[in-house]
Amino acid sequence: MTAALVLFSAGQDSATCLAWALDRYDRVETIGFFYGQRHAVELGQRAIVREAMAALKPAWAARLGEDILVDISGYGALAESALTADRAIEMAESGLPTTFVPGRNLVFLTVAAAQGYRRGVDTLVAGMCETDFSGYPDCRRDTIDAQERALALGLERPIKVETPLMHLTKGATWGLAHDLGGDALVDLIVEHSHTCYEGDRTHRHVWGYGCATCPACDLRAKGWEAWVASP
Amino acid sequence: MTAALVLFSAGQDSATCLAWALDRYDRVETIGFFYGQRHAVELGQRAIVREAMAALKPAWAARLGEDILVDISGYGALAESALTADRAIEMAESGLPTTFVPGRNLVFLTVAAAQGYRRGVDTLVAGMCETDFSGYPDCRRDTIDAQERALALGLERPIKVETPLMHLTKGATWGLAHDLGGDALVDLIVEHSHTCYEGDRTHRHVWGYGCATCPACDLRAKGWEAWVASP
Repeated sequence: MTAALVLFSAGQDSATCLAWALDRYDRVETIGFFYGQRHAVELGQRAIVREAMAALKPAWAARLGEDILVDISGYGALAESALTADRAIEMAESGLPTTFVPGRNLVFLTVAAAQGYRRGVDTLVAGMCETDFSGYPDCRRDTIDAQERALALGLERPIKVETPLMHLTKGATWGLAHDLGGDALVDLIVEHSHTCYEGDRTHRHVWGYGCATCPACDLRAKGWEAWVASP
Repeated sequence: MTAALVLFSAGQDSATCLAWALDRYDRVETIGFFYGQRHAVELGQRAIVREAMAALKPAWAARLGEDILVDISGYGALAESALTADRAIEMAESGLPTTFVPGRNLVFLTVAAAQGYRRGVDTLVAGMCETDFSGYPDCRRDTIDAQERALALGLERPIKVETPLMHLTKGATWGLAHDLGGDALVDLIVEHSHTCYEGDRTHRHVWGYGCATCPACDLRAKGWEAWVASP
């Protein structure tokens, strides 16, 4: 009996990871994080995507287990702590917003591993990707490897962090969804997953809902175009 | 200009770490965590210990900087999530309470590193100790080394985690306080630091306040006795 805990925000990437996990583990649970997101829309889509995936294939319905949403907004609140003058200059020079709090993925993985410990699940599945590099060093596989080792030592369990999207382009991520569940899964992800930073779910495009101008929409739209154009 | 961020709960260990840091860095900031502790008394002692240390030596007053308290009670709330039946049996067999959530020190270090990033501080000081082994694998230096590496990669900064108490007995920790600030610092730690799990600050002993029966009081009292008996 294999089991996995998916870090699941209901974005395109983590929705694809959820399908990937449902395709290969006997039991699949999900965990999400509230860290002071400006828009609750993304959190609301979590239950919708889960239900739609369970409706897609009976085997997936049988495998889909518990969900938990963990409030780590105190971590997000660090964004309000003062920057030192030197650090403010360094961050401005590297193009980072003054609200930037680093290491988010490390916090997510550590809290997920703690939950996995309680649930008897030693495999975490997460959507980090270093291909369309976001500029955040905690998305890279060498960082994930190091955190995996720290978790295995700190929890005394053989923790494994699977990152199925790590080396995929955004176009290839659409292709992976198609491989896993055909047009029906692609349609589900287009319709129900949410990526837009602005929380826009009124404007519908071929690749889903969103403002179409924020960096997240831009990446999603370009990935879609690349996939559609691929042979 | 050297700087350190001390993980500071106002317990005996972290109070000793704060003095250790004040003795050797030009600027010393502190960070504490609210994770759903049953008693707020420990949090209340934080400001008292900080003020008393600043009053002890003018150099320390000049070095002591910002404090921040971070609410990570969502992490503590995982204790309410269901245990699987197998896991409940495993935990019972290893003597762990059903509310146990592992990896606390990894969460503390990661959030502290994020705060350090904003404050331009790449050295964290933490009171983990593997000598009086608590049974928690996230206190061990090999775990801390692995987390240090994950943080350095994930934040792209040369993060250093100093653990001055790692190889000291609880008796030697009192000795370290004496080396750093003589009888005055030992008296300060006895009077103002708080360790007792029961939040007892009404019963005064030679080693400080506490119920004298919980495991934390027991460890503190035995360490005191060992130090007093040492040549």
